[in-house]
Amino acid sequence: MPEQLTLYLHKLSPFSQKVELALIEANAPYRGYHVDLVNKPEWFTSKVNPVGKVPTVTYGGPSVDPEEPSSLSAKITESNVILEFLADLYPDSGLLPKDPVSRAKVRFFIDASTKHVEAPLHDFVRGDGSYESVLKGIEFVQGLLEESGDFAVGDHYTIADACISPLLTRLKIITETDIGRFPVGLGFKLGEELKGPKFTKFTKYVDQILERPSLKQTYDKEGVITYFKTLFVRTQ
Amino acid sequence: MPEQLTLYLHKLSPFSQKVELALIEANAPYRGYHVDLVNKPEWFTSKVNPVGKVPTVTYGGPSVDPEEPSSLSAKITESNVILEFLADLYPDSGLLPKDPVSRAKVRFFIDASTKHVEAPLHDFVRGDGSYESVLKGIEFVQGLLEESGDFAVGDHYTIADACISPLLTRLKIITETDIGRFPVGLGFKLGEELKGPKFTKFTKYVDQILERPSLKQTYDKEGVITYFKTLFVRTQ
Repeated sequence: MPEQLTLYLHKLSPFSQKVELALIEANAPYRGYHVDLVNKPEWFTSKVNPVGKVPTVTYGGPSVDPEEPSSLSAKITESNVILEFLADLYPDSGLLPKDPVSRAKVRFFIDASTKHVEAPLHDFVRGDGSYESVLKGIEFVQGLLEESGDFAVGDHYTIADACISPLLTRLKIITETDIGRFPVGLGFKLGEELKGPKFTKFTKYVDQILERPSLKQTYDKEGVITYFKTLFVRTQ
Repeated sequence: MPEQLTLYLHKLSPFSQKVELALIEANAPYRGYHVDLVNKPEWFTSKVNPVGKVPTVTYGGPSVDPEEPSSLSAKITESNVILEFLADLYPDSGLLPKDPVSRAKVRFFIDASTKHVEAPLHDFVRGDGSYESVLKGIEFVQGLLEESGDFAVGDHYTIADACISPLLTRLKIITETDIGRFPVGLGFKLGEELKGPKFTKFTKYVDQILERPSLKQTYDKEGVITYFKTLFVRTQ
């Protein structure tokens, strides 16, 4: 029997979603526990993660109630660290390829999607970034996609796909709803631009990724939209 | 015979140094090539790394003159991606432990040293950061160090040590020379504070890391000092 694995998550957190996607795609047994970050339980910071952040994984030790975590389990935090951990735990899952060069491609994709999509998009939605940086970043990441267009790297779902997927859902919300602190209409404009011939490969990839059952299972679209509306309300 | 591995580096680049440290510690055969970043050769951007950055590794393909790189080799960039690649290429080197939980510790250490030491120190030396953030970051990373104090994680040199080592050399320069755009004397003050009882474990670790032959072999201290003097000249 495999060691117990509990994922402490928040349903609206893109970082939690990355990890849950990888678990589902690897067909790994796990227990998910939603942490109320507004009224954070005392035991979470004292016994699971002193920094109080999700996602955090507990691994091994006795099988216990998630609300009574054991001191005997390993505690693993930081979403990208957890993704690598899952790939190590499940070497035959395809979460990472076997070949060192292909593994480097997956990691480069993760690095690129963080620097070139996550960071500019984060700034853009908060009204601090530039439209051009978002487009440029997407173009860069598109350049890394396989010609087949099904997955980020190679012919299998990897942690690169898990890592970028939550970003793609948020990008779609921005382009469909125009929610964000950028000038009115710029979200819609981004959506139109991404439908153009320059971004065919990227858009095809996004469409396929968003259709995956693992994504639908982990994504509360209405919840994220409501959250975005509160968080990124325009103040002028 | 192993595949050819060429490391394109700059002698004063901490990111290049990380990679070279890992190669040496893994006892891996490689060819180092210093790239003149000021007068960058045309072939470097056209045939090795379109972004033009070091470190970049070429792996495999025919054994060629580094100035005439082959299109048949894999090109791998981003220092942390290369570190993982080397750990994959040399699974028995100890660059990463075998156990998934220990591997996660190494990766968490890398993440922490980047976020909590590299970033605040970078801001501090440029005059944009805070002294307190640097100290707080060092304290956080100290908390992750093993009690034995020899290595970042476990009882072997890993990519966590390779990753933080160049930062430690730069930290030492700042505390010994006071070079940086922070207020005069603050570098010396940081040095004094790190000698105090609160930072014994960290300082012991730094001292041991800086004594390693791999570090001495890859570190041009006078060169870095001269470079720092040019880069971080105080303008007031």
